[in-house]
Amino acid sequence: MTKMRVVEIAGNLMLKNDAIARRLRDRFAQSATLVVNLLSSPGSGKTTLLEKTLHRLAARYSIGVLVGDQATENDAARLATRGVDVRQITTGAECRLDADMIAKALDDWHDRRFDLLLIENVGNLICPAEYDLGEDLRAVLFSVTEGEDKPLKYPLAFNSSQVVVITKIDIAQAVGYDRAVATASIRQVNPQAPILELSARSGVGMDAWFALLEERMCAKSAVPAP
Amino acid sequence: MTKMRVVEIAGNLMLKNDAIARRLRDRFAQSATLVVNLLSSPGSGKTTLLEKTLHRLAARYSIGVLVGDQATENDAARLATRGVDVRQITTGAECRLDADMIAKALDDWHDRRFDLLLIENVGNLICPAEYDLGEDLRAVLFSVTEGEDKPLKYPLAFNSSQVVVITKIDIAQAVGYDRAVATASIRQVNPQAPILELSARSGVGMDAWFALLEERMCAKSAVPAP
Repeated sequence: MTKMRVVEIAGNLMLKNDAIARRLRDRFAQSATLVVNLLSSPGSGKTTLLEKTLHRLAARYSIGVLVGDQATENDAARLATRGVDVRQITTGAECRLDADMIAKALDDWHDRRFDLLLIENVGNLICPAEYDLGEDLRAVLFSVTEGEDKPLKYPLAFNSSQVVVITKIDIAQAVGYDRAVATASIRQVNPQAPILELSARSGVGMDAWFALLEERMCAKSAVPAP
Repeated sequence: MTKMRVVEIAGNLMLKNDAIARRLRDRFAQSATLVVNLLSSPGSGKTTLLEKTLHRLAARYSIGVLVGDQATENDAARLATRGVDVRQITTGAECRLDADMIAKALDDWHDRRFDLLLIENVGNLICPAEYDLGEDLRAVLFSVTEGEDKPLKYPLAFNSSQVVVITKIDIAQAVGYDRAVATASIRQVNPQAPILELSARSGVGMDAWFALLEERMCAKSAVPAP
């Protein structure tokens, strides 16, 4: 009985989140804002990937960044870049961002328009996977140091993502990363999504990441027939 | 002697304009801002074309508009649109915008970044044609009511433009517009530029105009290899 009640409350929360996420998605369609939700374990390299992404794209696109953390504003400080509006969302007890937090952050921005909104979710592969934020592209990162079976352990995070990013590829050999095993694990839970291998530190593979973002921005901006 | 001196001063002015225009072009390359300079006689439909362009694109792109007129701020008022920053440049005695006026307007904007900067030049086909504003795309408009030989009378305006826009095409038949003669005139001074026929009022042909702007914006944004 107690368990059922908990499930029911959780179900209502998800319905509410999904309704807000739908409104966000409409809003981002109107403003032709490409929204990317980055998911990963702590330390997989989300913030470094964002740093390099801003470094490369910030002069040429209007970009907003939302960074979720349970505590501290360190990441927002690291990401502060000329011309980019970075906001930290401190989630406190919550282990993930939800659609309502995104909506409130947009309100704080007074509807400022972005070509690209990058969302760094809380470092965690479980709860963030359950919350739709109205994004176009959910990107799950995992680094070559985390173990090739990670996708099998966190199937929802990998299955619900439209792109899988293998990070720290520059140290793959040093840590004995087995690409064939990792790829097989990913494909078992997500047969379709493109897999990018990159190192934000060395720059290897980053061009494919930028190209993906740019293609998706252009495709999203294309004005539909009225 | 007096004439030579006048020519010399004019030459210096152009050198100075071209130097500023080069700096503007670098700046717009850095910010991946597509810059369009609209030239035409008074009443060819620049402001109406801009109105419809903002109506269609303003929600989806970051757009700035600079409007040149010798007097009055009427056009800027007509173009005021939610989310678009419109500035009037009143040129006084001058019959055209020059690069320095654009640079000063950008300074007033504190380097705000745009996907698209639309410049409505002073309604005149002679002097504006001589001044490079750092634009990517010079678009010369002429309406079906102006006479098919206009390109031959103003060869520099037509020759220096990358796109020729025939406006008010919805009344072509009513005014007895001869497309073959107009096209031959254009081709005599500009063999290459695409020719768009459209009516901002009826909407005919506008999709090709939007598509041209969107393709050029995407092409300009594409980040070059570092």
